Amino acid sequence: MRYFCRVAYDGTRYNGWQVQPDAPSVQQHLEEKAAIVLRHPVAVTGGGRTDAGVHAEAQGMHFDTGEKLDCYRFAGSMNALLPDDIAIFNVQSVDDSFHARYSAIRRSYRYRICFRKMPLLVDRAWHVKYDIDWGLVMIQLPALLGKHDFTPFCAAGSGSATAICTVFSAAIERDGDLVVFSIEANRFVYKMVRSIVGTLVDIGRGMQTLTLKQILKSGDRSLAGTTAPSSGLVLTSVGYKEV
Amino acid sequence: MRYFCRVAYDGTRYNGWQVQPDAPSVQQHLEEKAAIVLRHPVAVTGGGRTDAGVHAEAQGMHFDTGEKLDCYRFAGSMNALLPDDIAIFNVQSVDDSFHARYSAIRRSYRYRICFRKMPLLVDRAWHVKYDIDWGLVMIQLPALLGKHDFTPFCAAGSGSATAICTVFSAAIERDGDLVVFSIEANRFVYKMVRSIVGTLVDIGRGMQTLTLKQILKSGDRSLAGTTAPSSGLVLTSVGYKEV
Repeated sequence: MRYFCRVAYDGTRYNGWQVQPDAPSVQQHLEEKAAIVLRHPVAVTGGGRTDAGVHAEAQGMHFDTGEKLDCYRFAGSMNALLPDDIAIFNVQSVDDSFHARYSAIRRSYRYRICFRKMPLLVDRAWHVKYDIDWGLVMIQLPALLGKHDFTPFCAAGSGSATAICTVFSAAIERDGDLVVFSIEANRFVYKMVRSIVGTLVDIGRGMQTLTLKQILKSGDRSLAGTTAPSSGLVLTSVGYKEV
Repeated sequence: MRYFCRVAYDGTRYNGWQVQPDAPSVQQHLEEKAAIVLRHPVAVTGGGRTDAGVHAEAQGMHFDTGEKLDCYRFAGSMNALLPDDIAIFNVQSVDDSFHARYSAIRRSYRYRICFRKMPLLVDRAWHVKYDIDWGLVMIQLPALLGKHDFTPFCAAGSGSATAICTVFSAAIERDGDLVVFSIEANRFVYKMVRSIVGTLVDIGRGMQTLTLKQILKSGDRSLAGTTAPSSGLVLTSVGYKEV
Protein backbone atom coordinates (compact mmCIF):
# COMPACT_ATOMS: atom_id res chain seq x y z
CA MET A 1 0.00 0.00 0.00
CA ARG A 2 1.19 3.49 -0.83
CA TYR A 3 0.97 6.45 1.53
CA PHE A 4 1.49 10.14 0.89
CA CYS A 5 2.30 12.83 3.43
CA ARG A 6 3.57 16.37 3.76
CA VAL A 7 6.98 17.14 5.27
CA ALA A 8 8.11 20.43 6.85
CA TYR A 9 11.71 21.06 7.83
CA ASP A 10 14.23 23.63 8.87
CA GLY A 11 17.07 22.82 6.47
CA THR A 12 19.80 24.64 8.43
CA ARG A 13 21.34 21.50 9.95
CA TYR A 14 20.98 19.29 6.88
CA ASN A 15 22.94 18.65 3.77
CA GLY A 16 19.71 18.85 1.79
CA TRP A 17 16.73 16.55 1.24
CA GLN A 18 18.51 13.66 -0.44
CA VAL A 19 20.37 10.82 1.30
CA GLN A 20 24.12 11.32 0.91
CA PRO A 21 27.07 9.36 2.27
CA ASP A 22 28.56 10.88 5.46
CA ALA A 23 26.18 13.89 5.62
CA PRO A 24 22.89 14.25 7.49
CA SER A 25 19.85 14.59 5.21
CA VAL A 26 16.13 15.00 5.76
CA GLN A 27 15.32 11.88 3.71
CA GLN A 28 17.69 9.76 5.81
CA HIS A 29 15.95 10.82 9.05
CA LEU A 30 12.53 10.05 7.56
CA GLU A 31 13.61 6.62 6.28
CA GLU A 32 15.27 5.69 9.58
CA LYS A 33 12.29 6.75 11.70
CA ALA A 34 9.73 5.16 9.35
CA ALA A 35 11.69 1.90 9.53
CA ILE A 36 11.44 2.01 13.35
CA VAL A 37 7.68 2.72 13.31
CA LEU A 38 6.81 0.25 10.51
CA ARG A 39 9.41 -2.38 11.53
CA HIS A 40 10.68 -2.87 7.96
CA PRO A 41 13.12 -0.94 5.72
CA VAL A 42 11.37 2.04 4.13
CA ALA A 43 12.32 4.08 1.04
CA VAL A 44 10.75 7.54 0.88
CA THR A 45 10.42 9.54 -2.33
CA GLY A 46 10.21 13.32 -2.20
CA GLY A 47 8.39 15.73 -4.51
CA GLY A 48 11.44 17.94 -4.91
CA ARG A 49 15.08 17.75 -3.87
CA THR A 50 16.05 20.75 -1.77
CA ASP A 51 19.70 21.76 -1.32
CA ALA A 52 21.68 22.09 1.90
CA GLY A 53 20.20 24.81 4.12
CA VAL A 54 16.94 25.14 2.15
CA HIS A 55 13.71 24.83 4.18
CA ALA A 56 10.31 23.29 3.37
CA GLU A 57 6.79 24.02 4.58
CA ALA A 58 4.88 21.38 2.61
CA GLN A 59 7.23 19.08 0.72
CA GLY A 60 5.42 15.99 -0.68
CA MET A 61 6.60 12.44 0.04
CA HIS A 62 5.40 8.88 -0.58
CA PHE A 63 6.40 5.47 0.73
CA ASP A 64 5.13 1.90 0.52
CA THR A 65 4.28 -0.57 3.26
CA GLY A 66 2.47 -3.90 3.51
CA GLU A 67 0.58 -2.71 6.58
CA LYS A 68 -2.68 -0.73 6.65
CA LEU A 69 -1.78 2.39 8.64
CA ASP A 70 -3.68 4.40 11.22
CA CYS A 71 -2.56 7.65 9.55
CA TYR A 72 -3.06 9.88 12.59
CA ARG A 73 -1.15 7.49 14.83
CA PHE A 74 1.66 7.01 12.31
CA ALA A 75 2.15 10.80 12.10
CA GLY A 76 2.25 11.03 15.90
CA SER A 77 4.86 8.25 16.21
CA MET A 78 7.01 9.73 13.44
CA ASN A 79 6.89 13.27 14.86
CA ALA A 80 7.86 12.00 18.30
CA LEU A 81 10.90 10.18 16.84
CA LEU A 82 11.97 12.87 14.36
CA PRO A 83 14.12 15.78 15.59
CA ASP A 84 12.50 19.20 16.28
CA ASP A 85 13.49 20.46 12.84
CA ILE A 86 11.60 17.82 10.80
CA ALA A 87 7.86 17.05 10.95
CA ILE A 88 5.28 15.20 8.85
CA PHE A 89 1.55 15.94 8.48
CA ASN A 90 -1.49 15.06 6.35
CA VAL A 91 -0.66 11.35 6.08
CA GLN A 92 -3.07 9.68 3.65
CA SER A 93 -3.49 6.52 1.63
CA VAL A 94 -3.00 6.99 -2.14
CA ASP A 95 -3.33 4.89 -5.27
CA ASP A 96 -0.26 2.79 -6.24
CA SER A 97 0.07 4.86 -9.41
CA PHE A 98 0.59 8.05 -7.40
CA HIS A 99 4.21 9.23 -7.21
CA ALA A 100 5.39 12.14 -5.02
CA ARG A 101 7.80 13.30 -7.73
CA TYR A 102 6.25 12.30 -11.06
CA SER A 103 2.65 13.13 -10.11
CA ALA A 104 3.65 16.63 -8.99
CA ILE A 105 2.30 19.30 -11.33
CA ARG A 106 3.72 22.39 -9.62
CA ARG A 107 6.25 23.53 -7.03
CA SER A 108 6.24 26.86 -5.23
CA TYR A 109 9.13 28.58 -3.52
CA ARG A 110 9.51 31.69 -1.38
CA TYR A 111 12.77 33.61 -1.01
CA ARG A 112 13.19 36.20 1.76
CA ILE A 113 15.64 39.10 1.65
CA CYS A 114 16.12 41.52 4.55
CA PHE A 115 17.77 44.90 4.22
CA ARG A 116 18.80 45.27 7.84
CA LYS A 117 20.03 42.78 10.47
CA MET A 118 16.89 40.85 11.55
CA PRO A 119 17.54 38.56 14.54
CA LEU A 120 14.22 36.73 14.10
CA LEU A 121 15.20 35.78 10.52
CA VAL A 122 18.69 34.37 11.15
CA ASP A 123 18.97 31.29 8.83
CA ARG A 124 15.66 32.35 7.21
CA ALA A 125 16.59 35.30 5.03
CA TRP A 126 19.45 36.73 2.99
CA HIS A 127 20.74 39.95 4.54
CA VAL A 128 21.51 42.23 1.57
CA LYS A 129 23.53 45.35 2.35
CA TYR A 130 23.17 47.19 -0.99
CA ASP A 131 20.64 49.79 -2.12
CA ILE A 132 18.23 48.27 -4.63
CA ASP A 133 16.27 50.02 -7.38
CA TRP A 134 12.99 48.12 -6.92
CA GLY A 135 11.36 49.63 -9.98
CA LEU A 136 14.12 48.08 -12.06
CA VAL A 137 13.68 44.71 -10.32
CA MET A 138 9.89 44.60 -10.62
CA ILE A 139 9.88 45.12 -14.40
CA GLN A 140 12.06 41.99 -14.81
CA LEU A 141 9.39 39.65 -13.40
CA PRO A 142 7.10 39.26 -16.45
CA ALA A 143 10.05 37.81 -18.42
CA LEU A 144 9.98 34.79 -16.09
CA LEU A 145 6.38 33.86 -16.88
CA GLY A 146 5.58 31.05 -19.30
CA LYS A 147 7.68 28.29 -20.87
CA HIS A 148 11.38 29.02 -21.21
CA ASP A 149 14.71 27.24 -21.33
CA PHE A 150 16.22 28.17 -17.94
CA THR A 151 19.74 26.97 -18.82
CA PRO A 152 21.31 30.33 -17.80
CA PHE A 153 19.77 29.87 -14.32
CA CYS A 154 20.69 26.20 -13.95
CA ALA A 155 23.84 25.45 -11.94
CA ALA A 156 26.29 22.80 -13.16
CA GLY A 157 25.75 19.30 -11.79
CA SER A 158 21.96 19.28 -12.12
CA GLY A 159 21.72 15.97 -13.93
CA SER A 160 18.54 17.20 -15.66
CA ALA A 161 18.10 16.34 -19.34
CA THR A 162 16.36 19.64 -20.02
CA ALA A 163 16.12 23.07 -18.39
CA ILE A 164 12.71 23.86 -19.89
CA CYS A 165 10.28 24.97 -17.16
CA THR A 166 6.88 26.67 -17.23
CA VAL A 167 6.62 29.46 -14.67
CA PHE A 168 3.00 30.08 -13.55
CA SER A 169 3.62 33.08 -11.29
CA ALA A 170 6.42 35.29 -9.96
CA ALA A 171 5.89 38.11 -7.49
CA ILE A 172 7.72 40.40 -5.09
CA GLU A 173 6.12 41.75 -1.92
CA ARG A 174 7.82 44.43 0.16
CA ASP A 175 7.12 45.07 3.82
CA GLY A 176 9.55 47.68 5.11
CA ASP A 177 13.04 46.18 5.19
CA LEU A 178 11.78 42.70 4.30
CA VAL A 179 11.23 41.58 0.72
CA VAL A 180 9.61 38.29 -0.27
CA PHE A 181 10.01 36.79 -3.74
CA SER A 182 7.51 34.04 -4.63
CA ILE A 183 7.59 31.82 -7.68
CA GLU A 184 5.54 28.86 -8.87
CA ALA A 185 6.40 26.59 -11.80
CA ASN A 186 5.75 23.07 -13.06
CA ARG A 187 9.38 22.22 -12.21
CA PHE A 188 12.65 23.91 -11.28
CA VAL A 189 16.22 23.13 -12.32
CA TYR A 190 19.25 23.03 -10.05
CA LYS A 191 19.62 26.22 -7.94
CA MET A 192 17.20 28.02 -10.29
CA VAL A 193 15.40 30.13 -7.64
CA ARG A 194 18.62 31.19 -5.92
CA SER A 195 20.18 32.02 -9.28
CA ILE A 196 17.16 34.13 -10.33
CA VAL A 197 17.08 35.96 -6.96
CA GLY A 198 20.83 36.64 -7.06
CA THR A 199 20.54 37.99 -10.60
CA LEU A 200 17.56 40.21 -9.65
CA VAL A 201 19.62 41.70 -6.79
CA ASP A 202 22.57 42.23 -9.18
CA ILE A 203 20.24 44.06 -11.59
CA GLY A 204 18.69 46.13 -8.76
CA ARG A 205 22.06 47.31 -7.49
CA GLY A 206 23.32 48.15 -10.95
CA MET A 207 25.88 45.35 -11.19
CA GLN A 208 24.17 43.66 -14.13
CA THR A 209 23.37 45.69 -17.24
CA LEU A 210 21.53 42.88 -19.06
CA THR A 211 17.83 42.35 -18.35
CA LEU A 212 16.52 39.04 -17.06
CA LYS A 213 14.86 38.57 -20.47
CA GLN A 214 18.17 39.06 -22.28
CA ILE A 215 19.97 36.60 -19.98
CA LEU A 216 17.18 34.04 -20.44
CA LYS A 217 17.22 34.39 -24.24
CA SER A 218 21.03 34.14 -24.40
CA GLY A 219 21.02 30.53 -23.23
CA ASP A 220 24.41 31.38 -21.70
CA ARG A 221 25.07 30.04 -18.22
CA SER A 222 27.94 32.48 -17.65
CA LEU A 223 25.68 35.56 -17.88
CA ALA A 224 23.58 34.88 -14.76
CA GLY A 225 25.09 36.43 -11.66
CA THR A 226 25.29 35.71 -7.95
CA THR A 227 23.61 32.61 -6.53
CA ALA A 228 21.64 33.81 -3.48
CA PRO A 229 22.41 31.88 -0.24
CA SER A 230 20.29 28.84 0.60
CA SER A 231 19.04 30.09 4.00
CA GLY A 232 16.50 32.50 2.43
CA LEU A 233 14.78 29.76 0.42
CA VAL A 234 11.67 27.78 1.41
CA LEU A 235 9.92 25.14 -0.70
CA THR A 236 6.42 26.29 0.26
CA SER A 237 4.50 23.51 -1.48
CA VAL A 238 4.48 20.73 -4.02
CA GLY A 239 1.14 20.59 -5.85
CA TYR A 240 -0.67 17.51 -7.17
CA LYS A 241 -3.91 16.91 -9.04
CA GLU A 242 -4.90 14.15 -6.62
CA VAL A 243 -4.01 15.30 -3.08
CA MET B 1 22.36 64.37 24.05
CA ARG B 2 19.62 61.73 23.99
CA TYR B 3 19.26 59.13 21.26
CA PHE B 4 16.40 56.75 20.53
CA CYS B 5 16.53 53.55 18.52
CA ARG B 6 14.60 50.37 17.80
CA VAL B 7 15.82 46.99 19.02
CA ALA B 8 14.92 43.58 17.55
CA TYR B 9 15.91 40.35 19.28
CA ASP B 10 15.39 36.62 19.41
CA GLY B 11 14.81 36.16 23.16
CA THR B 12 15.51 32.39 23.21
CA ARG B 13 19.02 32.65 24.67
CA TYR B 14 18.28 35.50 27.09
CA ASN B 15 16.90 35.82 30.54
CA GLY B 16 14.72 38.67 29.33
CA TRP B 17 15.31 42.31 28.50
CA GLN B 18 16.44 43.55 31.89
CA VAL B 19 19.96 43.33 33.33
CA GLN B 20 20.09 40.64 36.00
CA PRO B 21 22.97 39.29 38.05
CA ASP B 22 24.49 36.09 36.64
CA ALA B 23 22.08 35.78 33.68
CA PRO B 24 22.51 37.04 30.10
CA SER B 25 20.07 39.80 29.16
CA VAL B 26 19.43 41.88 26.04
CA GLN B 27 19.94 45.16 27.93
CA GLN B 28 23.35 44.02 29.21
CA HIS B 29 24.57 43.25 25.66
CA LEU B 30 23.35 46.64 24.45
CA GLU B 31 25.00 48.52 27.33
CA GLU B 32 28.30 46.63 26.93
CA LYS B 33 28.48 47.17 23.16
CA ALA B 34 27.38 50.83 23.37
CA ALA B 35 30.13 51.42 25.95
CA ILE B 36 32.70 50.01 23.50
CA VAL B 37 31.44 52.15 20.59
CA LEU B 38 30.98 55.37 22.64
CA ARG B 39 34.00 54.81 24.92
CA HIS B 40 32.07 55.68 28.10
CA PRO B 41 29.66 53.72 30.34
CA VAL B 42 26.15 53.72 28.85
CA ALA B 43 22.77 53.06 30.51
CA VAL B 44 20.00 52.06 28.10
CA THR B 45 16.30 52.34 28.95
CA GLY B 46 13.78 50.10 27.19
CA GLY B 47 10.16 50.78 26.31
CA GLY B 48 8.95 47.50 27.79
CA ARG B 49 10.55 44.75 29.82
CA THR B 50 10.20 41.41 28.08
CA ASP B 51 10.55 38.12 29.96
CA ALA B 52 13.01 35.29 29.35
CA GLY B 53 12.43 33.73 25.94
CA VAL B 54 10.16 36.55 24.65
CA HIS B 55 11.16 38.12 21.33
CA ALA B 56 10.95 41.69 20.00
CA GLU B 57 10.62 43.16 16.52
CA ALA B 58 10.65 46.88 17.39
CA GLN B 59 11.35 47.45 21.08
CA GLY B 60 12.08 51.11 21.86
CA MET B 61 15.25 52.23 23.69
CA HIS B 62 17.00 55.47 24.64
CA PHE B 63 20.45 56.37 25.96
CA ASP B 64 22.45 59.51 26.62
CA THR B 65 25.89 60.50 25.41
CA GLY B 66 27.97 63.68 25.31
CA GLU B 67 28.97 63.02 21.71
CA LYS B 68 27.02 63.98 18.59
CA LEU B 69 26.49 60.66 16.80
CA ASP B 70 26.56 59.71 13.14
CA CYS B 71 23.40 57.60 13.59
CA TYR B 72 23.94 55.35 10.58
CA ARG B 73 27.52 54.63 11.55
CA PHE B 74 26.62 54.01 15.23
CA ALA B 75 24.00 51.43 14.15
CA GLY B 76 26.54 49.71 11.92
CA SER B 77 29.16 49.52 14.69
CA MET B 78 26.62 48.24 17.24
CA ASN B 79 25.20 45.59 14.89
CA ALA B 80 28.68 44.33 14.07
CA LEU B 81 29.49 43.97 17.79
CA LEU B 82 26.12 42.58 18.93
CA PRO B 83 25.45 38.83 18.56
CA ASP B 84 23.31 37.57 15.65
CA ASP B 85 20.20 37.51 17.84
CA ILE B 86 20.18 41.22 18.76
CA ALA B 87 20.06 44.18 16.34
CA ILE B 88 19.33 47.90 16.50
CA PHE B 89 17.84 50.13 13.80
CA ASN B 90 16.32 53.59 13.25
CA VAL B 91 18.80 55.42 15.49
CA GLN B 92 17.75 59.06 15.87
CA SER B 93 18.39 62.10 18.03
CA VAL B 94 15.50 62.97 20.40
CA ASP B 95 14.66 65.73 22.84
CA ASP B 96 16.00 65.31 26.40
CA SER B 97 12.41 65.09 27.67
CA PHE B 98 11.77 61.97 25.57
CA HIS B 99 11.81 58.72 27.55
CA ALA B 100 11.63 55.24 25.93
CA ARG B 101 9.40 53.96 28.74
CA TYR B 102 7.43 56.97 30.01
CA SER B 103 6.81 58.54 26.59
CA ALA B 104 5.43 55.25 25.22
CA ILE B 105 1.69 55.45 24.57
CA ARG B 106 1.08 51.90 23.32
CA ARG B 107 2.66 48.47 23.15
CA SER B 108 1.66 45.71 20.75
CA TYR B 109 2.27 42.00 21.08
CA ARG B 110 1.74 38.99 18.86
CA TYR B 111 1.36 35.45 20.17
CA ARG B 112 1.62 32.46 17.81
CA ILE B 113 0.07 29.06 18.44
CA CYS B 114 0.57 26.08 16.12
CA PHE B 115 -1.63 23.01 16.13
CA ARG B 116 0.88 20.64 14.60
CA LYS B 117 4.65 20.29 14.92
CA MET B 118 6.09 23.17 12.84
CA PRO B 119 9.91 22.94 12.46
CA LEU B 120 10.19 26.49 11.11
CA LEU B 121 8.50 27.84 14.28
CA VAL B 122 10.59 26.09 16.95
CA ASP B 123 11.10 28.73 19.72
CA ARG B 124 8.60 30.97 17.87
CA ALA B 125 5.22 29.40 18.65
CA TRP B 126 3.37 27.39 21.30
CA HIS B 127 2.53 23.91 19.99
CA VAL B 128 -0.96 23.17 21.38
CA LYS B 129 -2.12 19.57 21.09
CA TYR B 130 -5.79 20.03 22.06
CA ASP B 131 -8.86 20.60 19.90
CA ILE B 132 -10.08 24.16 20.28
CA ASP B 133 -13.60 25.52 19.81
CA TRP B 134 -12.64 28.72 17.99
CA GLY B 135 -16.16 30.12 18.01
CA LEU B 136 -16.02 30.02 21.80
CA VAL B 137 -12.60 31.70 21.84
CA MET B 138 -13.49 34.45 19.36
CA ILE B 139 -16.50 35.66 21.36
CA GLN B 140 -14.23 36.28 24.38
CA LEU B 141 -12.19 38.97 22.60
CA PRO B 142 -14.54 41.99 22.94
CA ALA B 143 -14.34 41.65 26.76
CA LEU B 144 -10.65 42.63 26.55
CA LEU B 145 -11.30 45.96 24.84
CA GLY B 146 -11.26 49.19 26.82
CA LYS B 147 -10.08 50.10 30.32
CA HIS B 148 -10.07 47.25 32.84
CA ASP B 149 -8.28 46.14 35.98
CA PHE B 150 -6.24 43.20 34.68
CA THR B 151 -5.31 41.89 38.16
CA PRO B 152 -6.57 38.35 37.32
CA PHE B 153 -4.13 38.28 34.39
CA CYS B 154 -1.19 39.75 36.30
CA ALA B 155 1.36 37.27 37.64
CA ALA B 156 2.80 37.70 41.14
CA GLY B 157 6.04 39.69 41.34
CA SER B 158 5.06 42.40 38.89
CA GLY B 159 5.99 45.32 41.10
CA SER B 160 3.30 47.44 39.39
CA ALA B 161 1.20 49.72 41.58
CA THR B 162 -1.89 49.17 39.43
CA ALA B 163 -3.11 46.58 36.92
CA ILE B 164 -5.37 49.00 35.08
CA CYS B 165 -4.69 48.88 31.33
CA THR B 166 -6.57 50.17 28.29
CA VAL B 167 -6.69 47.62 25.48
CA PHE B 168 -7.06 49.25 22.04
CA SER B 169 -7.38 46.09 19.94
CA ALA B 170 -7.38 42.30 20.25
CA ALA B 171 -7.66 39.94 17.29
CA ILE B 172 -7.16 36.33 16.28
CA GLU B 173 -6.17 35.33 12.76
CA ARG B 174 -6.18 31.69 11.67
CA ASP B 175 -4.18 30.32 8.76
CA GLY B 176 -4.55 26.55 8.69
CA ASP B 177 -2.78 25.06 11.70
CA LEU B 178 -1.28 28.40 12.72
CA VAL B 179 -3.16 30.89 14.89
CA VAL B 180 -1.95 34.42 15.63
CA PHE B 181 -3.29 36.44 18.56
CA SER B 182 -2.56 40.19 18.41
CA ILE B 183 -3.18 42.71 21.15
CA GLU B 184 -2.42 46.41 21.58
CA ALA B 185 -2.77 48.39 24.81
CA ASN B 186 -1.39 51.50 26.49
CA ARG B 187 0.50 49.22 28.90
CA PHE B 188 0.65 45.57 29.99
CA VAL B 189 1.16 44.04 33.42
CA TYR B 190 3.46 41.12 34.27
CA LYS B 191 2.84 38.09 32.01
CA MET B 192 -0.52 39.57 30.95
CA VAL B 193 -0.46 38.45 27.29
CA ARG B 194 0.69 34.92 28.14
CA SER B 195 -1.94 34.68 30.87
CA ILE B 196 -4.72 35.85 28.51
CA VAL B 197 -3.58 33.44 25.75
CA GLY B 198 -3.38 30.52 28.19
CA THR B 199 -6.86 31.29 29.51
CA LEU B 200 -8.28 31.57 25.96
CA VAL B 201 -6.86 28.12 25.15
CA ASP B 202 -8.32 26.75 28.42
CA ILE B 203 -11.73 28.15 27.44
CA GLY B 204 -11.46 26.83 23.88
CA ARG B 205 -10.67 23.30 25.03
CA GLY B 206 -13.45 23.28 27.60
CA MET B 207 -11.20 23.37 30.69
CA GLN B 208 -12.48 26.74 31.88
CA THR B 209 -16.20 27.30 32.27
CA LEU B 210 -15.95 30.99 33.18
CA THR B 211 -15.84 33.54 30.39
CA LEU B 212 -12.94 35.96 30.03
CA LYS B 213 -15.35 38.73 31.03
CA GLN B 214 -16.30 36.90 34.24
CA ILE B 215 -12.65 36.29 35.16
CA LEU B 216 -11.78 39.93 34.46
CA LYS B 217 -14.70 41.21 36.58
CA SER B 218 -13.90 38.85 39.46
CA GLY B 219 -10.61 40.60 40.20
CA ASP B 220 -9.43 37.16 41.37
CA ARG B 221 -5.92 36.15 40.33
CA SER B 222 -6.61 32.47 41.05
CA LEU B 223 -9.32 32.21 38.37
CA ALA B 224 -7.08 32.79 35.32
CA GLY B 225 -5.63 29.58 33.96
CA THR B 226 -2.49 28.41 32.21
CA THR B 227 0.29 30.89 31.43
CA ALA B 228 1.25 30.26 27.80
CA PRO B 229 4.99 29.63 27.21
CA SER B 230 7.23 32.63 26.43
CA SER B 231 8.52 31.33 23.07
CA GLY B 232 5.26 32.20 21.24
CA LEU B 233 5.37 35.85 22.30
CA VAL B 234 6.79 38.80 20.32
CA LEU B 235 6.76 42.46 21.37
CA THR B 236 5.94 43.74 17.88
CA SER B 237 6.22 47.44 18.66
CA VAL B 238 6.31 50.19 21.26
CA GLY B 239 4.46 53.27 20.04
CA TYR B 240 5.24 56.94 20.76
CA LYS B 241 3.70 60.23 19.81
CA GLU B 242 7.06 61.64 18.81
CA VAL B 243 8.95 58.93 16.90
